[in-house]
Amino acid sequence: MRTIKSPHERKKEFLETARKFFFTKGYEQTSVDEIIKAVGLSKGSFYYYFKSKEDLLDELTKELSLKILTKIEEIVDRDDLDAISKLNKSFSEAAAIKFENIQLIKTLLKVLCDESNVYFRYKIYQKNTDIVAPEFYKIVQQGIKEETFNTPYPLESSRMIFELASNLTEKVSKLILEINENPENYKKLEREYQNYQLSIERILGAPEGSIDFFTDNLLNKFVRKIMSVEEL
Amino acid sequence: MRTIKSPHERKKEFLETARKFFFTKGYEQTSVDEIIKAVGLSKGSFYYYFKSKEDLLDELTKELSLKILTKIEEIVDRDDLDAISKLNKSFSEAAAIKFENIQLIKTLLKVLCDESNVYFRYKIYQKNTDIVAPEFYKIVQQGIKEETFNTPYPLESSRMIFELASNLTEKVSKLILEINENPENYKKLEREYQNYQLSIERILGAPEGSIDFFTDNLLNKFVRKIMSVEEL
Repeated sequence: MRTIKSPHERKKEFLETARKFFFTKGYEQTSVDEIIKAVGLSKGSFYYYFKSKEDLLDELTKELSLKILTKIEEIVDRDDLDAISKLNKSFSEAAAIKFENIQLIKTLLKVLCDESNVYFRYKIYQKNTDIVAPEFYKIVQQGIKEETFNTPYPLESSRMIFELASNLTEKVSKLILEINENPENYKKLEREYQNYQLSIERILGAPEGSIDFFTDNLLNKFVRKIMSVEEL
Repeated sequence: MRTIKSPHERKKEFLETARKFFFTKGYEQTSVDEIIKAVGLSKGSFYYYFKSKEDLLDELTKELSLKILTKIEEIVDRDDLDAISKLNKSFSEAAAIKFENIQLIKTLLKVLCDESNVYFRYKIYQKNTDIVAPEFYKIVQQGIKEETFNTPYPLESSRMIFELASNLTEKVSKLILEINENPENYKKLEREYQNYQLSIERILGAPEGSIDFFTDNLLNKFVRKIMSVEEL
Protein backbone atom coordinates (compact mmCIF):
# COMPACT_ATOMS: atom_id res chain seq x y z
CA MET A 1 0.00 0.00 0.00
CA ARG A 2 1.20 3.42 -0.91
CA THR A 3 2.09 5.57 2.09
CA ILE A 4 0.22 8.83 2.08
CA LYS A 5 2.46 11.67 3.19
CA SER A 6 1.12 14.81 4.79
CA PRO A 7 1.56 18.06 2.84
CA HIS A 8 4.03 19.20 5.46
CA GLU A 9 6.13 16.04 5.04
CA ARG A 10 6.15 16.42 1.27
CA LYS A 11 7.30 19.99 1.38
CA LYS A 12 9.99 19.05 3.87
CA GLU A 13 11.16 16.19 1.70
CA PHE A 14 11.61 18.49 -1.28
CA LEU A 15 13.54 20.90 0.88
CA GLU A 16 15.81 18.27 2.39
CA THR A 17 16.56 16.76 -1.00
CA ALA A 18 17.29 20.20 -2.44
CA ARG A 19 19.58 20.89 0.49
CA LYS A 20 21.47 17.65 -0.15
CA PHE A 21 21.87 18.34 -3.88
CA PHE A 22 22.77 22.01 -3.46
CA PHE A 23 25.45 21.13 -0.91
CA THR A 24 26.99 18.23 -2.79
CA LYS A 25 26.56 19.08 -6.49
CA GLY A 26 26.19 22.83 -6.18
CA TYR A 27 23.16 25.05 -6.74
CA GLU A 28 23.78 25.91 -10.38
CA GLN A 29 24.47 22.26 -11.23
CA THR A 30 21.21 21.01 -9.74
CA SER A 31 17.97 20.90 -11.73
CA VAL A 32 14.42 20.88 -10.41
CA ASP A 33 13.82 17.65 -12.36
CA GLU A 34 16.59 15.88 -10.48
CA ILE A 35 15.11 16.91 -7.17
CA ILE A 36 11.63 15.77 -8.18
CA LYS A 37 13.00 12.44 -9.38
CA ALA A 38 14.98 11.84 -6.20
CA VAL A 39 11.96 12.61 -4.00
CA GLY A 40 9.76 10.35 -6.14
CA LEU A 41 6.73 12.62 -6.14
CA SER A 42 5.06 14.24 -9.14
CA LYS A 43 6.02 17.45 -10.89
CA GLY A 44 2.62 18.86 -9.98
CA SER A 45 3.31 18.16 -6.36
CA PHE A 46 6.60 20.08 -6.53
CA TYR A 47 5.02 23.09 -8.20
CA TYR A 48 2.24 23.06 -5.64
CA TYR A 49 4.82 24.03 -3.02
CA PHE A 50 7.47 25.88 -5.00
CA LYS A 51 7.58 28.18 -7.99
CA SER A 52 11.19 27.45 -8.92
CA LYS A 53 14.61 26.26 -7.84
CA GLU A 54 15.26 29.73 -6.46
CA ASP A 55 12.20 29.30 -4.29
CA LEU A 56 13.82 26.25 -2.66
CA LEU A 57 16.96 28.20 -1.83
CA ASP A 58 14.79 31.04 -0.61
CA GLU A 59 13.01 28.68 1.82
CA LEU A 60 16.29 27.26 3.09
CA THR A 61 17.55 30.80 3.60
CA LYS A 62 14.36 31.73 5.43
CA GLU A 63 14.90 28.83 7.85
CA LEU A 64 18.36 30.16 8.61
CA SER A 65 17.13 33.75 8.97
CA LEU A 66 14.41 32.57 11.34
CA LYS A 67 16.97 30.79 13.54
CA ILE A 68 19.03 33.97 13.68
CA LEU A 69 15.99 36.16 14.35
CA THR A 70 14.83 33.86 17.17
CA LYS A 71 18.25 34.01 18.79
CA ILE A 72 18.41 37.81 18.50
CA GLU A 73 14.90 38.17 19.95
CA GLU A 74 16.00 36.04 22.91
CA ILE A 75 18.98 38.32 23.48
CA VAL A 76 16.95 41.50 23.08
CA ASP A 77 14.37 40.25 25.62
CA ARG A 78 16.93 39.55 28.34
CA ASP A 79 16.94 42.03 31.19
CA ASP A 80 20.37 41.16 32.57
CA LEU A 81 22.32 42.62 29.63
CA ASP A 82 23.18 46.18 28.71
CA ALA A 83 22.78 47.46 25.16
CA ILE A 84 26.45 47.07 24.22
CA SER A 85 26.48 43.43 25.35
CA LYS A 86 23.23 42.79 23.49
CA LEU A 87 24.62 44.24 20.29
CA ASN A 88 27.88 42.31 20.50
CA LYS A 89 26.09 39.12 21.48
CA SER A 90 23.59 39.45 18.61
CA PHE A 91 26.40 39.69 16.11
CA SER A 92 28.49 36.89 17.57
CA GLU A 93 25.53 34.52 18.00
CA ALA A 94 24.42 35.22 14.43
CA ALA A 95 27.95 34.37 13.32
CA ALA A 96 27.83 31.15 15.36
CA ILE A 97 24.58 30.09 13.67
CA LYS A 98 26.08 30.81 10.27
CA PHE A 99 29.06 28.76 11.36
CA GLU A 100 26.83 25.75 12.12
CA ASN A 101 25.22 26.13 8.70
CA ILE A 102 28.42 26.62 6.83
CA GLN A 103 27.37 24.59 3.79
CA LEU A 104 24.27 26.68 3.24
CA ILE A 105 26.35 29.81 3.75
CA LYS A 106 28.82 28.69 1.12
CA THR A 107 26.02 27.87 -1.32
CA LEU A 108 24.51 31.27 -0.66
CA LEU A 109 27.83 33.08 -1.05
CA LYS A 110 28.19 31.57 -4.50
CA VAL A 111 24.67 32.39 -5.55
CA LEU A 112 24.77 35.91 -4.12
CA CYS A 113 28.05 36.63 -5.92
CA ASP A 114 26.56 35.78 -9.27
CA GLU A 115 25.36 38.91 -11.04
CA SER A 116 22.45 37.06 -12.58
CA ASN A 117 21.04 36.69 -9.06
CA VAL A 118 20.96 40.37 -8.19
CA TYR A 119 17.20 40.35 -7.71
CA PHE A 120 17.32 37.32 -5.42
CA ARG A 121 20.02 38.99 -3.36
CA TYR A 122 18.02 42.20 -3.20
CA LYS A 123 14.96 40.36 -1.91
CA ILE A 124 16.95 38.47 0.72
CA TYR A 125 18.68 41.59 2.02
CA GLN A 126 15.48 43.54 2.12
CA LYS A 127 13.56 40.82 3.93
CA ASN A 128 16.35 40.38 6.47
CA THR A 129 16.54 44.11 7.09
CA ASP A 130 12.78 44.31 7.56
CA ILE A 131 12.68 41.51 10.12
CA VAL A 132 15.90 42.14 12.06
CA ALA A 133 16.24 45.96 12.02
CA PRO A 134 13.31 46.40 14.47
CA GLU A 135 15.16 44.22 17.01
CA PHE A 136 18.28 46.34 16.59
CA TYR A 137 16.15 49.42 17.05
CA LYS A 138 15.17 48.14 20.50
CA ILE A 139 18.83 47.66 21.41
CA VAL A 140 19.70 51.13 20.16
CA GLN A 141 16.88 52.68 22.18
CA GLN A 142 18.12 50.85 25.29
CA GLY A 143 21.66 52.12 24.65
CA ILE A 144 20.42 55.70 24.37
CA LYS A 145 18.54 55.30 27.65
CA GLU A 146 21.70 53.87 29.25
CA GLU A 147 23.66 56.78 27.76
CA THR A 148 26.22 54.49 26.15
CA PHE A 149 24.86 55.21 22.64
CA ASN A 150 24.48 58.69 21.32
CA THR A 151 22.61 59.32 18.11
CA PRO A 152 19.70 61.65 17.34
CA TYR A 153 18.55 59.14 14.69
CA PRO A 154 18.03 55.78 16.42
CA LEU A 155 15.51 54.48 13.88
CA GLU A 156 17.46 55.51 10.80
CA SER A 157 20.79 54.31 12.16
CA SER A 158 19.36 50.91 13.16
CA ARG A 159 18.46 50.32 9.54
CA MET A 160 21.74 51.78 8.36
CA ILE A 161 23.72 49.27 10.41
CA PHE A 162 21.83 46.54 8.69
CA GLU A 163 22.26 47.95 5.22
CA LEU A 164 25.98 48.16 5.88
CA ALA A 165 25.91 44.50 6.91
CA SER A 166 24.35 43.61 3.55
CA ASN A 167 26.98 45.60 1.69
CA LEU A 168 29.61 43.85 3.79
CA THR A 169 28.22 40.42 2.95
CA GLU A 170 28.50 41.21 -0.73
CA LYS A 171 32.13 42.32 -0.50
CA VAL A 172 33.07 39.50 1.83
CA SER A 173 31.46 36.87 -0.41
CA LYS A 174 33.65 37.80 -3.33
CA LEU A 175 36.78 37.97 -1.20
CA ILE A 176 36.16 34.58 0.45
CA LEU A 177 35.32 32.73 -2.74
CA GLU A 178 38.56 33.85 -4.39
CA ILE A 179 40.76 33.52 -1.34
CA ASN A 180 42.60 30.43 -2.57
CA GLU A 181 43.82 32.22 -5.68
CA ASN A 182 44.34 35.52 -3.82
CA PRO A 183 45.73 34.90 -0.34
CA GLU A 184 45.96 38.68 0.18
CA ASN A 185 42.14 38.64 0.35
CA TYR A 186 42.42 37.53 3.96
CA LYS A 187 43.96 40.85 4.93
CA LYS A 188 41.31 42.72 2.93
CA LEU A 189 38.59 40.72 4.65
CA GLU A 190 39.94 41.55 8.04
CA ARG A 191 40.00 45.25 7.19
CA GLU A 192 36.42 45.16 5.89
CA TYR A 193 35.18 43.57 9.11
CA GLN A 194 37.18 45.93 11.30
CA ASN A 195 35.96 48.94 9.35
CA TYR A 196 32.41 47.68 9.71
CA GLN A 197 32.73 47.29 13.48
CA LEU A 198 34.32 50.68 13.91
CA SER A 199 31.75 52.35 11.65
CA ILE A 200 28.71 51.02 13.48
CA GLU A 201 30.33 51.94 16.79
CA ARG A 202 30.78 55.49 15.53
CA ILE A 203 27.37 55.74 13.86
CA LEU A 204 25.75 54.77 17.16
CA GLY A 205 28.08 57.05 19.11
CA ALA A 206 29.19 54.10 21.30
CA PRO A 207 32.38 54.24 23.41
CA GLU A 208 35.58 53.54 21.51
CA GLY A 209 36.35 49.84 21.31
CA SER A 210 33.01 48.78 22.78
CA ILE A 211 31.70 47.09 19.64
CA ASP A 212 33.81 44.02 19.18
CA PHE A 213 32.11 40.83 18.12
CA PHE A 214 34.35 39.45 15.45
CA THR A 215 37.79 38.93 16.91
CA ASP A 216 40.58 38.05 14.50
CA ASN A 217 40.48 34.51 15.71
CA LEU A 218 36.79 34.02 14.92
CA LEU A 219 37.27 35.52 11.47
CA ASN A 220 40.16 33.17 10.85
CA LYS A 221 38.12 30.16 11.99
CA PHE A 222 35.21 31.23 9.84
CA VAL A 223 37.26 31.63 6.68
CA ARG A 224 39.07 28.35 7.24
CA LYS A 225 35.80 26.54 7.77
CA ILE A 226 34.35 28.04 4.60
CA MET A 227 37.41 26.98 2.67
CA SER A 228 37.40 23.48 4.13
CA VAL A 229 33.84 22.75 2.98
CA GLU A 230 34.24 20.49 0.01
CA GLU A 231 34.46 22.45 -3.25
CA LEU A 232 31.10 22.73 -4.96
CA MET B 1 19.39 64.77 -51.69
CA ARG B 2 19.47 62.77 -48.49
CA THR B 3 21.68 64.22 -45.79
CA ILE B 4 24.24 61.72 -44.56
CA LYS B 5 24.59 61.97 -40.82
CA SER B 6 27.76 61.00 -39.02
CA PRO B 7 27.55 58.02 -36.62
CA HIS B 8 28.05 60.43 -33.75
CA GLU B 9 25.13 62.58 -34.86
CA ARG B 10 22.89 59.56 -35.27
CA LYS B 11 23.62 58.27 -31.82
CA LYS B 12 23.04 61.70 -30.38
CA GLU B 13 19.75 62.05 -32.18
CA PHE B 14 18.48 58.78 -30.70
CA LEU B 15 19.56 59.94 -27.26
CA GLU B 16 17.96 63.38 -27.55
CA THR B 17 14.71 61.90 -28.82
CA ALA B 18 14.70 59.33 -26.02
CA ARG B 19 15.32 62.10 -23.52
CA LYS B 20 12.37 64.08 -24.89
CA PHE B 21 10.02 61.08 -24.78
CA PHE B 22 11.15 59.86 -21.37
CA PHE B 23 10.66 63.31 -19.88
CA THR B 24 7.29 64.03 -21.44
CA LYS B 25 5.57 60.63 -21.73
CA GLY B 26 7.53 58.76 -19.07
CA TYR B 27 10.07 55.97 -19.41
CA GLU B 28 7.69 53.03 -19.03
CA GLN B 29 5.21 54.55 -21.48
CA THR B 30 7.80 55.02 -24.23
CA SER B 31 8.63 52.26 -26.72
CA VAL B 32 11.79 51.81 -28.74
CA ASP B 33 9.67 51.78 -31.92
CA GLU B 34 8.32 55.23 -31.16
CA ILE B 35 11.81 56.60 -30.71
CA ILE B 36 12.99 55.02 -33.98
CA LYS B 37 9.99 56.39 -35.82
CA ALA B 38 10.47 59.88 -34.44
CA VAL B 39 14.15 59.92 -35.39
CA GLY B 40 13.33 58.59 -38.87
CA LEU B 41 16.28 56.19 -39.06
CA SER B 42 16.11 52.42 -39.45
CA LYS B 43 15.66 49.81 -36.73
CA GLY B 44 19.03 48.39 -37.64
CA SER B 45 20.61 51.76 -37.10
CA PHE B 46 19.11 51.96 -33.60
CA TYR B 47 20.30 48.51 -32.63
CA TYR B 48 23.74 49.32 -33.96
CA TYR B 49 24.10 51.83 -31.11
CA PHE B 50 21.84 50.47 -28.38
CA LYS B 51 20.77 47.08 -27.13
CA SER B 52 17.50 48.22 -25.57
CA LYS B 53 15.48 51.04 -24.11
CA GLU B 54 17.33 50.54 -20.84
CA ASP B 55 20.54 51.15 -22.72
CA LEU B 56 19.30 54.61 -23.70
CA LEU B 57 18.54 55.50 -20.10
CA ASP B 58 21.89 54.07 -19.12
CA GLU B 59 23.66 56.41 -21.59
CA LEU B 60 21.72 59.43 -20.37
CA THR B 61 22.65 58.47 -16.81
CA LYS B 62 26.29 58.09 -17.80
CA GLU B 63 26.30 61.63 -19.22
CA LEU B 64 25.04 62.91 -15.89
CA SER B 65 27.53 60.82 -13.91
CA LEU B 66 30.35 62.13 -16.08
CA LYS B 67 29.33 65.73 -15.42
CA ILE B 68 29.35 65.04 -11.69
CA LEU B 69 32.66 63.18 -11.85
CA THR B 70 34.29 66.02 -13.80
CA LYS B 71 33.11 68.55 -11.24
CA ILE B 72 34.36 66.42 -8.33
CA GLU B 73 37.75 65.92 -10.02
CA GLU B 74 38.04 69.68 -10.40
CA ILE B 75 37.34 70.14 -6.70
CA VAL B 76 39.73 67.36 -5.66
CA ASP B 77 42.53 68.89 -7.76
CA ARG B 78 42.28 72.34 -6.18
CA ASP B 79 45.09 73.20 -3.81
CA ASP B 80 43.35 76.07 -2.04
CA LEU B 81 40.78 73.89 -0.24
CA ASP B 82 41.08 71.69 2.83
CA ALA B 83 39.60 68.19 2.89
CA ILE B 84 36.43 69.15 4.75
CA SER B 85 35.64 71.91 2.24
CA LYS B 86 36.36 69.54 -0.63
CA LEU B 87 33.99 66.93 0.76
CA ASN B 88 31.20 69.41 1.41
CA LYS B 89 31.73 71.09 -1.95
CA SER B 90 31.68 67.75 -3.79
CA PHE B 91 28.33 66.87 -2.29
CA SER B 92 26.76 70.27 -2.80
CA GLU B 93 28.03 70.62 -6.39
CA ALA B 94 26.78 67.13 -7.20
CA ALA B 95 23.41 68.16 -5.79
CA ALA B 96 23.48 71.32 -7.93
CA ILE B 97 24.12 69.29 -11.09
CA LYS B 98 21.26 66.96 -10.21
CA PHE B 99 19.16 70.06 -9.67
CA GLU B 100 19.90 71.28 -13.20
CA ASN B 101 18.95 67.86 -14.56
CA ILE B 102 15.85 67.48 -12.48
CA GLN B 103 13.79 65.82 -15.22
CA LEU B 104 16.33 63.07 -15.71
CA ILE B 105 16.54 62.67 -11.94
CA LYS B 106 12.80 62.28 -11.70
CA THR B 107 12.77 59.73 -14.52
CA LEU B 108 15.56 57.84 -12.79
CA LEU B 109 13.85 57.95 -9.40
CA LYS B 110 10.81 56.29 -10.92
CA VAL B 111 12.80 53.64 -12.72
CA LEU B 112 15.04 52.92 -9.74
CA CYS B 113 12.04 52.54 -7.45
CA ASP B 114 10.55 49.86 -9.64
CA GLU B 115 11.47 46.42 -8.35
CA SER B 116 11.68 45.04 -11.87
CA ASN B 117 14.68 47.30 -12.40
CA VAL B 118 16.80 46.01 -9.53
CA TYR B 119 19.56 44.86 -11.84
CA PHE B 120 19.71 48.20 -13.64
CA ARG B 121 19.92 49.99 -10.30
CA TYR B 122 22.62 47.64 -9.12
CA LYS B 123 24.72 48.33 -12.23
CA ILE B 124 24.31 52.10 -11.93
CA TYR B 125 25.25 52.16 -8.25
CA GLN B 126 28.23 49.92 -8.79
CA LYS B 127 29.54 51.93 -11.73
CA ASN B 128 29.12 55.20 -9.85
CA THR B 129 30.92 53.81 -6.82
CA ASP B 130 33.76 52.54 -8.97
CA ILE B 131 34.32 55.88 -10.68
CA VAL B 132 33.68 58.30 -7.83
CA ALA B 133 34.98 56.43 -4.74
CA PRO B 134 38.64 56.86 -5.83
CA GLU B 135 38.16 60.66 -5.84
CA PHE B 136 36.70 60.49 -2.34
CA TYR B 137 39.64 58.38 -1.28
CA LYS B 138 41.96 61.26 -2.25
CA ILE B 139 39.92 63.67 -0.13
CA VAL B 140 39.96 61.26 2.81
CA GLN B 141 43.72 60.85 2.54
CA GLN B 142 44.14 64.63 2.51
CA GLY B 143 41.92 64.93 5.59
CA ILE B 144 43.99 62.36 7.44
CA LYS B 145 47.16 64.28 6.56
CA GLU B 146 45.51 67.50 7.76
CA GLU B 147 44.44 65.65 10.92
CA THR B 148 40.80 66.66 10.54
CA PHE B 149 39.77 63.10 9.59
CA ASN B 150 40.59 60.14 11.74
CA THR B 151 40.06 56.62 10.44
CA PRO B 152 42.42 53.66 10.20
CA TYR B 153 40.48 52.50 7.10
CA PRO B 154 40.57 55.36 4.56
CA LEU B 155 40.09 53.08 1.54
CA GLU B 156 37.28 51.03 3.01
CA SER B 157 35.46 54.02 4.45
CA SER B 158 35.67 55.97 1.18
CA ARG B 159 33.72 53.19 -0.49
CA MET B 160 31.39 52.86 2.47
CA ILE B 161 30.38 56.52 2.22
CA PHE B 162 29.43 55.87 -1.34
CA GLU B 163 27.51 52.72 -0.64
CA LEU B 164 25.56 54.60 2.00
CA ALA B 165 24.79 57.26 -0.60
CA SER B 166 23.33 54.56 -2.87
CA ASN B 167 21.21 53.19 -0.03
CA LEU B 168 20.10 56.73 0.70
CA THR B 169 19.11 57.34 -2.92
CA GLU B 170 16.93 54.27 -2.81
CA LYS B 171 15.11 55.33 0.35
CA VAL B 172 14.83 58.93 -0.74
CA SER B 173 13.42 57.96 -4.15
CA LYS B 174 10.49 56.17 -2.57
CA LEU B 175 9.86 58.97 -0.08
CA ILE B 176 9.95 61.70 -2.74
CA LEU B 177 7.72 59.94 -5.22
CA GLU B 178 5.00 59.43 -2.62
CA ILE B 179 5.34 62.78 -0.93
CA ASN B 180 2.12 64.21 -2.31
CA GLU B 181 0.05 61.43 -0.75
CA ASN B 182 2.21 61.32 2.39
CA PRO B 183 3.24 64.82 3.43
CA GLU B 184 4.97 63.34 6.51
CA ASN B 185 7.57 61.95 4.09
CA TYR B 186 9.22 65.35 4.08
CA LYS B 187 10.17 64.99 7.74
CA LYS B 188 11.41 61.43 7.09
CA LEU B 189 13.47 62.64 4.16
CA GLU B 190 15.07 65.32 6.27
CA ARG B 191 15.98 62.77 8.94
CA GLU B 192 17.48 60.40 6.37
CA TYR B 193 19.71 63.15 4.97
CA GLN B 194 20.71 64.37 8.39
CA ASN B 195 21.50 60.84 9.55
CA TYR B 196 23.57 60.33 6.40
CA GLN B 197 25.58 63.50 6.97
CA LEU B 198 26.17 62.71 10.61
CA SER B 199 27.12 59.10 9.84
CA ILE B 200 29.74 59.93 7.24
CA GLU B 201 31.14 62.61 9.55
CA ARG B 202 31.48 60.00 12.29
CA ILE B 203 32.77 57.23 10.02
CA LEU B 204 35.54 59.56 8.86
CA GLY B 205 36.17 60.78 12.39
CA ALA B 206 35.63 64.40 11.27
CA PRO B 207 34.91 67.22 13.77
CA GLU B 208 31.30 67.45 14.93
CA GLY B 209 29.18 69.53 12.59
CA SER B 210 31.90 69.85 9.94
CA ILE B 211 30.08 67.83 7.28
CA ASP B 212 27.14 69.93 6.23
CA PHE B 213 26.32 70.10 2.57
CA PHE B 214 22.58 69.73 2.48
CA THR B 215 21.01 72.46 4.55
CA ASP B 216 17.28 72.26 5.20
CA ASN B 217 16.68 74.97 2.70
CA LEU B 218 18.43 73.16 -0.15
CA LEU B 219 16.55 69.96 0.65
CA ASN B 220 13.30 71.88 0.61
CA LYS B 221 14.15 73.49 -2.74
CA PHE B 222 15.14 70.13 -4.18
CA VAL B 223 11.95 68.39 -3.13
CA ARG B 224 9.79 71.25 -4.35
CA LYS B 225 11.56 71.26 -7.69
CA ILE B 226 11.10 67.48 -8.06
CA MET B 227 7.43 67.85 -7.25
CA SER B 228 6.95 70.76 -9.64
CA VAL B 229 8.30 68.84 -12.63
CA GLU B 230 5.21 67.95 -14.61
CA GLU B 231 3.77 64.59 -13.59
CA LEU B 232 5.02 61.80 -15.83
